[in-house]
Amino acid sequence: MIQTPYLLFLGDAPDGLAAKVAQGIRDWRPDQCVGQFRLEGCKADLGLPDMSLADAYANGARTLVIGVANRGGVISQSWRAVLLEALEIGYDLASGLHNLLRNDNALAAAAQVHGRTLHDVRVPGVAYPIATGEKRTGKRVLAVGTDCSVGKMYTALALERDMVALGMKATFRATGQTGILITGAGVPLDAVIADFMAGSIEYLTPDNDADHWDIIEGQGSLFHASYSGVSLALIHGGQPDALVICHEPTRTHMRGLPGYALPSLEAVRDTALTMAHVVNPNCKVVGVSVNTKAMGEDEARAYLAKVEAQVGVPAVDPFRHGATRLAEALAAL
Amino acid sequence: MIQTPYLLFLGDAPDGLAAKVAQGIRDWRPDQCVGQFRLEGCKADLGLPDMSLADAYANGARTLVIGVANRGGVISQSWRAVLLEALEIGYDLASGLHNLLRNDNALAAAAQVHGRTLHDVRVPGVAYPIATGEKRTGKRVLAVGTDCSVGKMYTALALERDMVALGMKATFRATGQTGILITGAGVPLDAVIADFMAGSIEYLTPDNDADHWDIIEGQGSLFHASYSGVSLALIHGGQPDALVICHEPTRTHMRGLPGYALPSLEAVRDTALTMAHVVNPNCKVVGVSVNTKAMGEDEARAYLAKVEAQVGVPAVDPFRHGATRLAEALAAL
Repeated sequence: MIQTPYLLFLGDAPDGLAAKVAQGIRDWRPDQCVGQFRLEGCKADLGLPDMSLADAYANGARTLVIGVANRGGVISQSWRAVLLEALEIGYDLASGLHNLLRNDNALAAAAQVHGRTLHDVRVPGVAYPIATGEKRTGKRVLAVGTDCSVGKMYTALALERDMVALGMKATFRATGQTGILITGAGVPLDAVIADFMAGSIEYLTPDNDADHWDIIEGQGSLFHASYSGVSLALIHGGQPDALVICHEPTRTHMRGLPGYALPSLEAVRDTALTMAHVVNPNCKVVGVSVNTKAMGEDEARAYLAKVEAQVGVPAVDPFRHGATRLAEALAAL
Repeated sequence: MIQTPYLLFLGDAPDGLAAKVAQGIRDWRPDQCVGQFRLEGCKADLGLPDMSLADAYANGARTLVIGVANRGGVISQSWRAVLLEALEIGYDLASGLHNLLRNDNALAAAAQVHGRTLHDVRVPGVAYPIATGEKRTGKRVLAVGTDCSVGKMYTALALERDMVALGMKATFRATGQTGILITGAGVPLDAVIADFMAGSIEYLTPDNDADHWDIIEGQGSLFHASYSGVSLALIHGGQPDALVICHEPTRTHMRGLPGYALPSLEAVRDTALTMAHVVNPNCKVVGVSVNTKAMGEDEARAYLAKVEAQVGVPAVDPFRHGATRLAEALAAL
């Protein structure tokens, strides 16, 4: 568990996109963001107060989160100076970078001297068990995608927000680096050893109140040749009571796989349900979440209506119109 | 690549089952087995000449393969003495044990001093790529199972034997520890990091002659809640032209999962084909391989005839009757 609240480190981000991890934290956990820390030349701005390390610490911040991608995969001297000072002041550090903080000798030594923790959320910190397939109490909904990067995390976070607004018990369960930094906990599923994938998801979504929903962030797609095994492990480890199909309608091919067409929504529905019924015979598809960013309002409404008629379940864009209809469909299960 | 031929180390195996890895090597690669090495009290016997380390080395053996499970997960002093002497004589060591040879300080030091290699086949020795999904030349057949441990490795090895006997070009591709020790190479798929599973199978089965068949050892089952992700990665990384469904008819539940019934052969066929068609639209199920060990000859024949009528493809027990009919079905594709 990563200590909150956070100071968000934006470094020398060349644009807002480079700071998308920080943006995700700011969008979904604004209460946990004391401020932002920017180096000279930083072009990203989250609209949070710019703070020094000392001031943010005095205002309660306990973890400096690296919310920006680094250039060339190395921690630069200008970054390192800030990170070392943060450890000295009393911050833990959290990072989803490919090159691990713990492998930086200067940072590792400083963390030891000052008794601080380096959270490299890209690698598992737990020896996960092999999945048992045993039924757990409580309910679970899983986001499944026609492709990678179609909005599964966003859909799950919007569901959490709107389920809680309806008075439901709901917890977002992160399975990727950004989600883990947003919530402070989770399983970095793509870095888990094959034998323990489904078990890590059982670990992530344990027994809970009968009326509590775990909202499991999906990964990949059953129809994505590179990552499908991860997607199936989520279904079998998650034992979902409900699935939400996530889709991005402007894709011309599967992400990173030129020549691979996207599956139909019906194909995703049918295969995901067949697999889900192995572990939960009552699992249902409750809705479709569409990323309509590329469409005007009328076009988006028309597209959602078409999908809804086609698949026979509510179709929404949770960013544009909220996820309340999906939350209501879950409440009605 | 593990150097051959082998001397098979049976240690103090309490029974034949404890030496099943050595038995597999002896059954499938007898030409590569110079002899067996047994400690006092060993109850396993492969029918190979008992040889000293020095004699076997003089007869050409270059790797001492630990073909036996160790008790309590530790390398005992009596084992270690033999392994150290082997390194000194000039052997490499190969092991599928959970506790790695390289983590044994005495063995690691001796290997370094003598310039020998410790092959811990349970862990990957390669940084596998992410799968690209690109079409490779050559043909591939994959064993898929209704469950774990139903005979997928045996089926694949029998197919290799009988395809070669028919004059076909065929190579068994190991994806598990025993298979790797049998063939001297392969991918320990259950120990691969999630993101690289499908890529490791692409790596294992690269471009080849147009009329060459890779016979890919299957793992797990799409319907096994603990390991299904591995099975799907095999389908998407393998890009199979053909599938053989493997089945063991006496199972009352999925291995290790009480309460989980086995899927029907039709369910495995339909889901495996749906997933295979993502990467290879021409993939076909060419046969069913049944482990009829628990049946008398008449019962086995009747059961195989029933399965053949039910699924509409050849059904054979490759151990009992050979895999020639499956090989012919592949040749006819």
